[in-house]
Amino acid sequence: MKLVVLYTHPDDADAFERHCADIHMPLMDKVPGLLRTETGKVRAALDGGEKIYHRITELYFADQAAMQAGFGSAKGKATSSDYAKIAPPGSRMFVVPVDE
Amino acid sequence: MKLVVLYTHPDDADAFERHCADIHMPLMDKVPGLLRTETGKVRAALDGGEKIYHRITELYFADQAAMQAGFGSAKGKATSSDYAKIAPPGSRMFVVPVDE
Repeated sequence: MKLVVLYTHPDDADAFERHCADIHMPLMDKVPGLLRTETGKVRAALDGGEKIYHRITELYFADQAAMQAGFGSAKGKATSSDYAKIAPPGSRMFVVPVDE
Repeated sequence: MKLVVLYTHPDDADAFERHCADIHMPLMDKVPGLLRTETGKVRAALDGGEKIYHRITELYFADQAAMQAGFGSAKGKATSSDYAKIAPPGSRMFVVPVDE
C-alpha cells in the first residue's frame, strides 16, 4: 500500500527543496510503520503537456491499517501538519494499493 | 529513472482494466531496458479532493538514455501506440529521476 504525493510548483523552489530535505523528509522518516519512501523531482512531461507537478513522493506501508495507524500517531500528525505548511496549492495525495 | 503514468478515469473501467492486463502490460513488459514496473488502482484521495486518477503506473529504467532507447525501439513504439489507444483524455506522463 502506498501514498502517492504530487506536489505542484512552489513559488520558491529552492526554499521548498530545502524544507523538504531538512525538515519534511526527516519528519516523514519517523512515521511508525513506514517501510520505504521514494521521491524525485519531475524532470519533464513526456506527453507534450504542461509539467504540472514539481515533485512526486511515495510512502510505502504494509497495508491500509498500517498507513492509518502511522498517520494517526503523533509523528504522523507532525508530518501531515508540516505537509499542510509546505504543499503548494493544487498538490494532491492518493492512496494506491500496489498490484502484485 | 522512472516514467510515472497517471491514468484518468476511463468511460468503461472494466474494459480498460481488461485491456491493461491482457494487452498493455504484456506489451510494456517487452520494452527493452525496462527494469521493473509498479502499478495500482487509486483507492482514494487523502486530501478530500476529487479522485482524478484511476490508475498510476511506474516504469523503471537505469537512466534516461535507457528509457529513450526503450521507447525508441519497435516494442517501445508498440507500447506507446497502445497507450495512445487506451489512455483516457487528461492522462499524464512524467519523467522522474528518483533521488538516492
